[in-house]
Amino acid sequence: MKVGVFDSGIGGLTVVKSLLEHQLFEEIVYYGDTARVPYGSKDKNTIIRYAIEAVEFFKNFELDMIIVACNTVSAYALGEMRESSTCPVIGVVEAGVLATSNTLKDKNSNILILGTKATVNSKAYESGLNYLGFENLEAKATGLFVPMVEEEIFEGKILEATFEHYFKDIKSPNAVILGCTHFPLLSQALQNHFGDDTLLIHSGNAIVEHLEEEFTFTKRYKDPEIKFFSSENPDALKEIAKKWL
Amino acid sequence: MKVGVFDSGIGGLTVVKSLLEHQLFEEIVYYGDTARVPYGSKDKNTIIRYAIEAVEFFKNFELDMIIVACNTVSAYALGEMRESSTCPVIGVVEAGVLATSNTLKDKNSNILILGTKATVNSKAYESGLNYLGFENLEAKATGLFVPMVEEEIFEGKILEATFEHYFKDIKSPNAVILGCTHFPLLSQALQNHFGDDTLLIHSGNAIVEHLEEEFTFTKRYKDPEIKFFSSENPDALKEIAKKWL
Repeated sequence: MKVGVFDSGIGGLTVVKSLLEHQLFEEIVYYGDTARVPYGSKDKNTIIRYAIEAVEFFKNFELDMIIVACNTVSAYALGEMRESSTCPVIGVVEAGVLATSNTLKDKNSNILILGTKATVNSKAYESGLNYLGFENLEAKATGLFVPMVEEEIFEGKILEATFEHYFKDIKSPNAVILGCTHFPLLSQALQNHFGDDTLLIHSGNAIVEHLEEEFTFTKRYKDPEIKFFSSENPDALKEIAKKWL
Repeated sequence: MKVGVFDSGIGGLTVVKSLLEHQLFEEIVYYGDTARVPYGSKDKNTIIRYAIEAVEFFKNFELDMIIVACNTVSAYALGEMRESSTCPVIGVVEAGVLATSNTLKDKNSNILILGTKATVNSKAYESGLNYLGFENLEAKATGLFVPMVEEEIFEGKILEATFEHYFKDIKSPNAVILGCTHFPLLSQALQNHFGDDTLLIHSGNAIVEHLEEEFTFTKRYKDPEIKFFSSENPDALKEIAKKWL
């Protein structure tokens, strides 16, 4: 099978990493809209417009499905992308909701949702989790996390002060949804902050779990072909891909 | 006179504020590319492409000049904008260099240049200051400052830890160039950090000084007409303008 992976920038590589580890696809076409990243502070109409442009881009390839690695796009534009696309479009938000529900047996669990401003404002995770019977939800827009990851700040005083700033009123939750592709890079620091009993939900793993439930993968591909495209500076994207994957 | 003010987003409003205080223009047309902000992490070709689009936009108005409030655009695309424009195009970098030089009499002064990654990589401030005889220059990309301002973090532990992170090896400079339109909002915290003897150079004030030197303003306008345009959500821009101006 051939898959397209769409993200607003480079963050979706964390999802590609999970796809590679599970050897699900014969060919992966990655498209990052690096010239217009980040989407998390943009408004709904702009996000939808850019997302439909991505579907048009993927029409140059004969894909079996499109994975939307970006939480913000998954939250706002999945319906519109599905309308424009001739192949299935799968988003990380749905996958994250299902992964959370599959893992937490107790419907009274406290769940903390972290994301960009746009993702949190969409209430997409809350809607899904409410529908599955979870009520103890809190969402927090953690706008400083993406720039911190991009500055390669993964530990230390700034991060501690930032956690204190965002989480001062939050008791240790049963699960934390990492609702942005950049956030898995802060997993270790977040696990240290909340303690080992808190489950972290990672979009990449969630999407693999979701795919294995929904589709039949008859073959595994140890050495898939990966094509990288971006709306600016594809060399920089390839450089980061080499480091992360 | 009628002026166009261009910025990648909302930051250029700090420059508009200075223009208003000095009552220089009869009409101000502000254009913020809020759908594609920030420019500071994009590469040169993308910045130039977007900057030329802004010049095209301003051709809808009969302007006497265009002010580029964005340091990143001023650093990379001023030449290309001038080629496309039929009126003068003035950038904050040139203005900041001249304001620094006018104020610091000692050519051995230590000058710290703060900016986005793109502005710092351009070495635009260094080139200008070197040309005017200043040699003791240090530049620092402070990528966390813009998101902090946008999260309205103007003081406190995160900011202190961030200053410590960026400035741990920097002794008190004679001047600090606030090479990004967002940074004046951190003036008070930066002044506290570096001490009262350090001069802060603010793009808005620098551009007014530059304009008053280069052009003749025969009249003052107490109540100029201001038109706001943006590539997404103009209402949000107007809301912020109301708060800041």
